[in-house]
Amino acid sequence: MSLRAIKTSPSKEELADRLEKVRNLMKQQGLDYYISFDPVNIYYLTNFAFYVHERPFILIIPKEDIPKMLIPLLEKGHFKSRAKCELDFVIYYEFPAQNGENWYNHYQKHINSDSKVGVESALPIGIANKTPGKIIVSDIIEEIRLIKTDYEIGRTVHASRVVNKGHKILLKKCRPGVLEFALYKEVTDAMTSKIVQDIPNANFRATETTGAVWPPSISHDPHLIPNIFAPMEEGGPHVSIVSAQVDGYGVEIERTFFLGYVPEKAKKPFEVMYNARALAYDLLKPGIIMSEVDKKVRKYITTEGYGNNIIHRTGHGLGITGHEAPFLAEGYDRELESKMIISVEPGIYIPGLGGFRHSDTVLITEDGYSKLTKAPETLDELTISL
Amino acid sequence: MSLRAIKTSPSKEELADRLEKVRNLMKQQGLDYYISFDPVNIYYLTNFAFYVHERPFILIIPKEDIPKMLIPLLEKGHFKSRAKCELDFVIYYEFPAQNGENWYNHYQKHINSDSKVGVESALPIGIANKTPGKIIVSDIIEEIRLIKTDYEIGRTVHASRVVNKGHKILLKKCRPGVLEFALYKEVTDAMTSKIVQDIPNANFRATETTGAVWPPSISHDPHLIPNIFAPMEEGGPHVSIVSAQVDGYGVEIERTFFLGYVPEKAKKPFEVMYNARALAYDLLKPGIIMSEVDKKVRKYITTEGYGNNIIHRTGHGLGITGHEAPFLAEGYDRELESKMIISVEPGIYIPGLGGFRHSDTVLITEDGYSKLTKAPETLDELTISL
Repeated sequence: MSLRAIKTSPSKEELADRLEKVRNLMKQQGLDYYISFDPVNIYYLTNFAFYVHERPFILIIPKEDIPKMLIPLLEKGHFKSRAKCELDFVIYYEFPAQNGENWYNHYQKHINSDSKVGVESALPIGIANKTPGKIIVSDIIEEIRLIKTDYEIGRTVHASRVVNKGHKILLKKCRPGVLEFALYKEVTDAMTSKIVQDIPNANFRATETTGAVWPPSISHDPHLIPNIFAPMEEGGPHVSIVSAQVDGYGVEIERTFFLGYVPEKAKKPFEVMYNARALAYDLLKPGIIMSEVDKKVRKYITTEGYGNNIIHRTGHGLGITGHEAPFLAEGYDRELESKMIISVEPGIYIPGLGGFRHSDTVLITEDGYSKLTKAPETLDELTISL
Repeated sequence: MSLRAIKTSPSKEELADRLEKVRNLMKQQGLDYYISFDPVNIYYLTNFAFYVHERPFILIIPKEDIPKMLIPLLEKGHFKSRAKCELDFVIYYEFPAQNGENWYNHYQKHINSDSKVGVESALPIGIANKTPGKIIVSDIIEEIRLIKTDYEIGRTVHASRVVNKGHKILLKKCRPGVLEFALYKEVTDAMTSKIVQDIPNANFRATETTGAVWPPSISHDPHLIPNIFAPMEEGGPHVSIVSAQVDGYGVEIERTFFLGYVPEKAKKPFEVMYNARALAYDLLKPGIIMSEVDKKVRKYITTEGYGNNIIHRTGHGLGITGHEAPFLAEGYDRELESKMIISVEPGIYIPGLGGFRHSDTVLITEDGYSKLTKAPETLDELTISL
């Protein structure tokens, strides 16, 4: 499997191949149409990125013929300039509009009322209620997104280099007293600069960077948003999060690190996290059931006495988002496959002491895995002398 | 109506009043529960801001008793630290989870299956299908958000000062040859600095700033994302967009301006846009039907020969988002009311010449309106000498 970085937009053929896979699943499921509303899925098939607001954007995929994109007039030029696939456009004037001119009047003309219509589970009920035909909820596009194409792998390889750079700077700049916002600015500016140098026409609707540290006083609470004036502290555990969506491709790298010294109490949980992670990596091969990985990791952490300090699964997928299927999680009883991209990040969270978590963006290969993100991993390397 | 700026988080009473209004509408509509999934509506009622990802967050409002917030374990600490209202929590372990422990197993325990359940039209069909009871689509929270409370008005007054500052800097820095990204950086940095000075604990999950200019070569296509290396040009029309969500409150200010000189062909469309805008303002009083404003503005622009150059409605609401109901749009046949906040932005777009649009964030008062955003408006003021 080539790990060459790719920085260019997807070709028409790449998008046509993705559509073909969607149509194969439609055929298997006997669907006459598939309706996509989720902007992530529309981006996957068209290369057009947008935020959902009150004006609906809907992709109508008939089982044959060119897909139709329903959009407001205001977006026509913009959509055409970014879309890289064959599309017919259905333009409605505005939201709302005069009687008979609303988005759903146009929408309903393009779907036969006696057909079987596949929809995403994310489809808003307000749009489902305006959809003709028999609705069948089936997340076909998410299903296809599970296995990455060589192009997607190349984009993720490139995106990983961006966060590797960000994380290197973060570790260099993080010292006791440095404020969260100063770190954030330094790390995100460096990543944004690399992105625009590498991809001058990067789509900033599909580009975002984050570089933050949870200092020890809050690192036990991983989804809390740190106060921007929070100072870095001596000791640790500090937990970094450096993530990016680089012209459409999401990656992350996270490390548990210490400034100056490692508190005695932090040594064991670091070691258990470190070993739990090694255990997870040992299991990463095509064919293993993903819930098994989570179960074994959890069992090990529990045996070591930290069962009550687990608050999330072992990992999640990445791709055109930073958080998606598949999941290394109990209840996700599906085989790991080559060309999936996942995070591996078992964590231990102890209020009053802090959080312990490393995360990497990892490609599953035919005989194991390849870590796409790189940063120091051992306690020694991650104890930064002051 | 006081136009004092407010910079503090909402009080418990403010949020209790909002909930009370939701419950009054629930009662009128005979609903036993109301389910909110839209993060914007959950923010409105709880003060907790988040992005939707695969782990559902669902607010269950029974007609009596304390509302219940269904969240993943991972978010518990974070949610509690931000929520400002009375809430009971229903915690599920993870997404996915072991059999019987999934989010919907917990969710379904809290809704009686013989009840009438109001839901948002944005509710994903996958969640609707897991919701017990008889589902009734009714956008109650959006309905309440139409009329702003004094607290919300105060927040919007403050947010407007942030974009006023940003726009002032933008006009000062915009010169031929200056690159889009340099302008963006200067304007957004200045706004972010003001935000953190004014609101040190601002929630950055609900804070965002944008400062961009569409130079004349693209200003006819208002939703295109400018190339970040696009240089500003001599002449015009340039169209600026300075918008922000300031610790939860969204505002915008936009201007059509010229660098050095006004091309002859640009004079008439500027004048027509300017007059269309004046016409819209003249109509802004509680009691007018909103579609009438759009219709009259459109009629005037059409009479002047630019009917084919209108590609969007006259205005939209703002509040905890930058784009929401109500709408100054044909098809929106509702009365304008005091304490609504809207944009006023009739536009004319001529490929090959450029776009013509001013926008302000405007509060409707008992006898008319008050512009909350301020920047030069006339062609003279907006022709910047080089």
